Amino acid sequence: MQIIADEYQTAFKLVASQYGYAHIETPAVEYLDTLASKGDIDKEIYAIHRAQGEGDSVEADRGLHFDLTVPFARYVAQHQNDLYFPFRRYQIQKVWRGERPQKGRFREFYQADIDVVAPEQLPPYYDAEVATVMAAVLETWQLGSMTMHISNRKFLDGLLQSFGIPMETAVLQAIDKLDKIGVEAVTTILSDELGYERSAVTDCLALISRSVGRKELSDFWAELPSENETLEAGRAELESLFNALPEDTSEGVQFVLDPRIARGLDYYTGTVYETTIDGLERYGSICSGGRYTDLVSRFSNKKLPGVGLSIGLTRLLAIAEAEDLVQPTRHSLSDVVVCLLNEEQEKASLQTAQRLREAGYRTETNHRAKVGLGKQISTAEAKGIPWALVVESDDTYTLYNIGGDKASCTSFTEVLMALEK
Amino acid sequence: MQIIADEYQTAFKLVASQYGYAHIETPAVEYLDTLASKGDIDKEIYAIHRAQGEGDSVEADRGLHFDLTVPFARYVAQHQNDLYFPFRRYQIQKVWRGERPQKGRFREFYQADIDVVAPEQLPPYYDAEVATVMAAVLETWQLGSMTMHISNRKFLDGLLQSFGIPMETAVLQAIDKLDKIGVEAVTTILSDELGYERSAVTDCLALISRSVGRKELSDFWAELPSENETLEAGRAELESLFNALPEDTSEGVQFVLDPRIARGLDYYTGTVYETTIDGLERYGSICSGGRYTDLVSRFSNKKLPGVGLSIGLTRLLAIAEAEDLVQPTRHSLSDVVVCLLNEEQEKASLQTAQRLREAGYRTETNHRAKVGLGKQISTAEAKGIPWALVVESDDTYTLYNIGGDKASCTSFTEVLMALEK
Repeated sequence: MQIIADEYQTAFKLVASQYGYAHIETPAVEYLDTLASKGDIDKEIYAIHRAQGEGDSVEADRGLHFDLTVPFARYVAQHQNDLYFPFRRYQIQKVWRGERPQKGRFREFYQADIDVVAPEQLPPYYDAEVATVMAAVLETWQLGSMTMHISNRKFLDGLLQSFGIPMETAVLQAIDKLDKIGVEAVTTILSDELGYERSAVTDCLALISRSVGRKELSDFWAELPSENETLEAGRAELESLFNALPEDTSEGVQFVLDPRIARGLDYYTGTVYETTIDGLERYGSICSGGRYTDLVSRFSNKKLPGVGLSIGLTRLLAIAEAEDLVQPTRHSLSDVVVCLLNEEQEKASLQTAQRLREAGYRTETNHRAKVGLGKQISTAEAKGIPWALVVESDDTYTLYNIGGDKASCTSFTEVLMALEK
Repeated sequence: MQIIADEYQTAFKLVASQYGYAHIETPAVEYLDTLASKGDIDKEIYAIHRAQGEGDSVEADRGLHFDLTVPFARYVAQHQNDLYFPFRRYQIQKVWRGERPQKGRFREFYQADIDVVAPEQLPPYYDAEVATVMAAVLETWQLGSMTMHISNRKFLDGLLQSFGIPMETAVLQAIDKLDKIGVEAVTTILSDELGYERSAVTDCLALISRSVGRKELSDFWAELPSENETLEAGRAELESLFNALPEDTSEGVQFVLDPRIARGLDYYTGTVYETTIDGLERYGSICSGGRYTDLVSRFSNKKLPGVGLSIGLTRLLAIAEAEDLVQPTRHSLSDVVVCLLNEEQEKASLQTAQRLREAGYRTETNHRAKVGLGKQISTAEAKGIPWALVVESDDTYTLYNIGGDKASCTSFTEVLMALEK
């Protein structure tokens, strides 16, 4: 899995930089004051201390970051005079959370984030851009078709308001259960338990529980209650977002309006995103985020709104492995192993290996002639190395295509030609 | 510096994989039992705990790794039945040490390590290979010429024995001061303070304090005291190591025998290495390591000898920056910025940006038409982006070579042709 994880990180970095996102890294250790938000997450923060208790008091107030958004906000506030805005950044680092260990949950895991921030006002285009970039990343990873569910806090707020329902914790918690318990059970909670009028609840949920594809958007807009400013503001933001998104591709990420997406009581103030793998919705979202107004201002008196998305990379790879979405990788990335025929050939074998490296082949060498050629070649096969080369004598080589033919070569050029085939 | 750090990591990974080294990553958090060695380093280990004190007891016995060698040894012991030996691995991760903060010392920093281990017996060739790979890495980074100082614990032990001096802590500490206080002062310590015969100390230090280039090796061997088995074993290992090293290159890393290198009272049992930047020796070693017999066996009842080298990457970059060995980098890696002339051109600008990406150009886009073109182009210049493209209307473009000419293009193909120049 290490090879796959490396490839995923490389692809993520490549795509993000294609769109002008700059790479930053922040320390894993931050002040606890920076990390703590007086929310549920605080319970999961790991603080650090000297194991032998000899640390100075400086360290007692520090801990490991639990996501990359809070450290990014602190970074932007701190470096705002040195940055060019809108500032696009990607970040891919480990984070730590004291969650109870369970299948698919990790206490130490990689997150891969992109965000854009700008002072005062960030154009609505960026809500589409971050979705576009993350969709391009996910498509590059080829884990099958996915759906990015998009909504907007203002839109949901306005929609609820139009039916006389406030956007409160209990209401959001009920709506969050739509997928699990269904419209009828949520209707019961909102009307019988929370006391909202049943017919309003029914009409409201009929809109909220819909998944609206891009082509059905204009029809959906026509069904909305009119004369609610918050709703209209959210609707307009969603419309401009969907207009700026790239066309859906058949094997890629499909964009869908899902008004019920709320991302709990997070810091999001506008667009919110969740992404599921088609057919594997039970794993929940693998790429989430949203637009925030006030995150950076926790660390600065300037207003620096932003929008971003985050992928839980370690968890996604665990899903991919469990669901056979990725092929098992080989033990070695080497292209060629230079076997050792006998001790006299060690120097010539080393020189040949170096020439292969210079020709662009990742080449490893063997150094125990006691291990017979047959064993050396079967080990290469087990490690997944495609070629084994034996330097028989000066300018006489035998090249084994593992699991295939062997070729005798009377010059290094012939070896290179045989490798190229 | 982030861009440089990324390039260094990429180059390290590339070179290591060219030699067949496999990438592994280990968790940052290990059992304290695994980390603790009853040595000085134990004081620097950070343990973790839940900030709010609600953690289960499972976590009380864990801490952050302080190097990559100990976690690697634990990893090899744990996975020995799944690995192919000799197992070559590289690892590049952050480590944490509770050192008192001072210039050039960090509490959170990157290390880049390579090691090879094998059961029972690891051929002496690998001592040369790890030095070769790290020299190739250091040459790729182009930080100027360097010297890798190589010695051998058996060689130093035998040399001391031959003059009736035991290899004890106090003796090694004195020898370690040779560079700082000179031969005479060390002679005084060994003879007057520690009581060894002055003439023996003088003769011994005359050999130990030498730096022996590769061409002077055979002459140096002839000067050694005879009939000490430990000395001869160390000498033979050094000779075979130097024979297997690549030729020194003028702009690269020079290999020198320096008998005084001892690496303190570390776990090393044979070859030891330290590397200094020529002219910047005062910073100490930037790439160190050695051969160990008993490290993996701390976690396993099997004997798994190994040899490895480690670079303190964060510290090396801090030196490179302080000494102007690296050029300052630009704010953005983007090749092109697509400027926004007016809101009507936003869709065409986005499409053009996408075509540029597909043609291989890292392309960012602007989205505030209110910001005039002059300002957009001067920002591109400040960010270090070489090209700015304005989509004037369908199939009419102006391409600015920042700090140079501008070109009018009447098709996207003309834009690509102008960019290629």
